[in-house]
Amino acid sequence: MFNQGICYPRHGAPEEVLSYEKLPLIKLDDREVRIEIQASTIHPSDLGLIQGSYGLLRPLPAIGGREGVGKIVEVGSAVTEEVMNKIVAVPDLVGAWQAYCNCHVDNLILLPALIPYAQLAVSILNPMTAWRLLNDFEYLKEGDIVIQNAGNSAVGVSVVQFAKRMGLRCVSLVRSEKRMQELIDFGAEEVWLDDEEVPKRTEEYTNGKGCSLVLNSVGGRSATRLAKCLKSGGVHVTFGAMNGEPVRFPTRNLIFDDVRFVGFWLDRWRRQKTKAQIRNALEEILQPLALTEVSYPIDSFFSLDEFPQAFQRNAQSRFGKVLFAKDKQALMDSMN
Amino acid sequence: MFNQGICYPRHGAPEEVLSYEKLPLIKLDDREVRIEIQASTIHPSDLGLIQGSYGLLRPLPAIGGREGVGKIVEVGSAVTEEVMNKIVAVPDLVGAWQAYCNCHVDNLILLPALIPYAQLAVSILNPMTAWRLLNDFEYLKEGDIVIQNAGNSAVGVSVVQFAKRMGLRCVSLVRSEKRMQELIDFGAEEVWLDDEEVPKRTEEYTNGKGCSLVLNSVGGRSATRLAKCLKSGGVHVTFGAMNGEPVRFPTRNLIFDDVRFVGFWLDRWRRQKTKAQIRNALEEILQPLALTEVSYPIDSFFSLDEFPQAFQRNAQSRFGKVLFAKDKQALMDSMN
Repeated sequence: MFNQGICYPRHGAPEEVLSYEKLPLIKLDDREVRIEIQASTIHPSDLGLIQGSYGLLRPLPAIGGREGVGKIVEVGSAVTEEVMNKIVAVPDLVGAWQAYCNCHVDNLILLPALIPYAQLAVSILNPMTAWRLLNDFEYLKEGDIVIQNAGNSAVGVSVVQFAKRMGLRCVSLVRSEKRMQELIDFGAEEVWLDDEEVPKRTEEYTNGKGCSLVLNSVGGRSATRLAKCLKSGGVHVTFGAMNGEPVRFPTRNLIFDDVRFVGFWLDRWRRQKTKAQIRNALEEILQPLALTEVSYPIDSFFSLDEFPQAFQRNAQSRFGKVLFAKDKQALMDSMN
Repeated sequence: MFNQGICYPRHGAPEEVLSYEKLPLIKLDDREVRIEIQASTIHPSDLGLIQGSYGLLRPLPAIGGREGVGKIVEVGSAVTEEVMNKIVAVPDLVGAWQAYCNCHVDNLILLPALIPYAQLAVSILNPMTAWRLLNDFEYLKEGDIVIQNAGNSAVGVSVVQFAKRMGLRCVSLVRSEKRMQELIDFGAEEVWLDDEEVPKRTEEYTNGKGCSLVLNSVGGRSATRLAKCLKSGGVHVTFGAMNGEPVRFPTRNLIFDDVRFVGFWLDRWRRQKTKAQIRNALEEILQPLALTEVSYPIDSFFSLDEFPQAFQRNAQSRFGKVLFAKDKQALMDSMN
């Protein structure tokens, strides 16, 4: 038994700094378990971490990957054998793009049974962001209207599904007709092209009332347009596109329309919470998954050693996540 | 006895639409008093009202002027004679740029005695904005650092004085060396030029901690620069320059630095408050004036019929307000 993973010794473009390396299999402490990683995903923020542009970086050299799911295959001497074979989340920071990792029992996050690995591998970061976006900035009541750009993103589809459960009306903007159809097929009720018509269309759709909440992960003109869709006192939350174009907005928007521009970063949110608060928050997002009330689109699977192809696919326009899988075929089968 | 005032029949440039007109002296109701207006001021928002660009406009034709001070010279049949000769604020909306106005006793705002009319004529709108800016957005503790552009504006000098009373450190930015010296002479402790050096200088001045609060009434590049001076979690409040350049800010600023961009508009604030709340707020700003702990710079006095010259002077770079005065000489004398 040995370990392997996708590593970077310095920051830079993924194609320049990533390599698939043999890694030590670290000895278990008494209260640690060994996780065999079954599936892990590529997030936009993974690229920021590798390039060195993310808000908080890992010590170098680092193993890539922020989110994944695994099975406990070995336990330390002080850990009950009962946890063997349990399905758990890959802990933060260790690197999800490897075959095995260790985890202290106190940090284990048990995931719901009977859910495909592919779903579990994307069940935390993006859904948790979506949940927070809908719950932390505005007290939203049934019938309130939320508008988001990048509606086909992983956070976007979570927002669509959670908003529906909360009785909200959600308008999702996308950048092409193809994405529009996919998102409608996925279950979104209101999907529009992200163009200059959006403010006028919103005015009509909301009977002149405007939206309570804007969710922006694009920036630039799209973000500025969304500001015009807000009702007086509404909130404009930016949570993505940290390297993109700046947001521009007229000062009279701020003064007379009483809109607020704020940001959200899940990493900071987690740093400010206790373990118990984070576990509670996890339950909120895992429960709908366990009840199969929500699901997350998956685009494709690659084995770890196929990482160049995985990154190539990840750079293309698509609907759903690109995943690394220990057993591609099994995961593909589980999706049907 | 007759009334006269500066009127506009339609919206447009002040030099095109304003005229000095003879006006009816409106009969007093039982519970009204007549105020002889002693002094009134020209605010930037007066220009917005006249041009039609302000957030809330007056019915046309309108009498100009938002703020002034007067003396009660006549009382309705149900009003006690005791209020005769009391000094009061000119009520909102009636137009402060006229010789006389009526006011219902319930709406009277008594001003502190023994303060020159010129000071009283500028004692509410700008100081109240300054007070709210320092108290409503962030819980500021002694030693916290606030930074503002347009430090030599009427709100700016109020911020300087109130901040000092609150134990805050206040950095004021101005656009010329001349304004710098005037503001220092007025008592400001930290005055810098509003240039590209500001973020670096703030970094040094705050030992890398950043400012808790940004007060922006300029917009454009100045506003964007100030965003870079904020500490994580800090608030960027825009309250002026509603017709100026938009504010641009990078999305990573919002996401990773957790700064908030909000607006403030005194008119909205007042609409949301009860009369009692507004009276309490007035006491907070009038008390330091009564105690002569604060004062407001005055640039010049004009009689109402000299309004073209007053607007000319108002358009020039200066330190202090341009006032209309019933008796210019008396007001000038009172300032020494």
